[in-house]
Amino acid sequence: MKPKLILISHGNYAEQVYESVKMIVGEIDGVRVITMPPDEGPEETRLKIAGELSGLGRNEPVLIIADLPGGTPCNVSTEVMSARENTGLLTGLNLSMVIEYAVTELDKLEELAPYLRDIGIESIRIVNNNVIKTAGEGYED
Amino acid sequence: MKPKLILISHGNYAEQVYESVKMIVGEIDGVRVITMPPDEGPEETRLKIAGELSGLGRNEPVLIIADLPGGTPCNVSTEVMSARENTGLLTGLNLSMVIEYAVTELDKLEELAPYLRDIGIESIRIVNNNVIKTAGEGYED
Repeated sequence: MKPKLILISHGNYAEQVYESVKMIVGEIDGVRVITMPPDEGPEETRLKIAGELSGLGRNEPVLIIADLPGGTPCNVSTEVMSARENTGLLTGLNLSMVIEYAVTELDKLEELAPYLRDIGIESIRIVNNNVIKTAGEGYED
Repeated sequence: MKPKLILISHGNYAEQVYESVKMIVGEIDGVRVITMPPDEGPEETRLKIAGELSGLGRNEPVLIIADLPGGTPCNVSTEVMSARENTGLLTGLNLSMVIEYAVTELDKLEELAPYLRDIGIESIRIVNNNVIKTAGEGYED
């Protein structure tokens, strides 16, 4: 069974990433979104994450993708997930990671997490004069 | 002068990335957002990009960050920018790239584009048991 996916961010970013993904691939089974409005603190976020996790089976695998490393969504996720098995956490949420979650057949958390990490990384490219360049290649050449 | 920054995406993702960035670092000078609602096609997107670029000085540098490589926002940006100098295009938009745009002192497009690319890439990490791992490191160790 493919791990469930939780997207979490400052503000509505996680929600709108998912809305944009739906424009491209349609609804995805197993995706949940947690937003952290400007007037909410870590404790409310902690409760939202715990609430989502408590709705899953005890050993059901879940992958959380947070907006950035070291922010409140990431840090609180790390705390909450420490009490749970089969839970992974990625940071740097972008569109390609979520699109690929929808279409990949990988269903093991230990394979899915590094795979989506690599997809996210590969989607960050300099495009110039219609030539797509990947990490490590120069800008001017 | 730091290049202007244009964020562009399917749906409201680009807009909400910027809203989330403002929660962390406040308003940023020189940022514009272009969204592509589900009912808009490439031609409307093309007009929006051309409109933003025509509001800039003829040689004013601008960096566009699109949601993903090969999508309509990226492809249309590539077409429109081909008629303009001092215009760069990155894909894989995420939060760290825009936060770093706000705080970096780099003001040359040819330095800023690869720098924000690398920042975006470095923000995509597997976090597990409070240990942040970067690309290339394993998940299980």
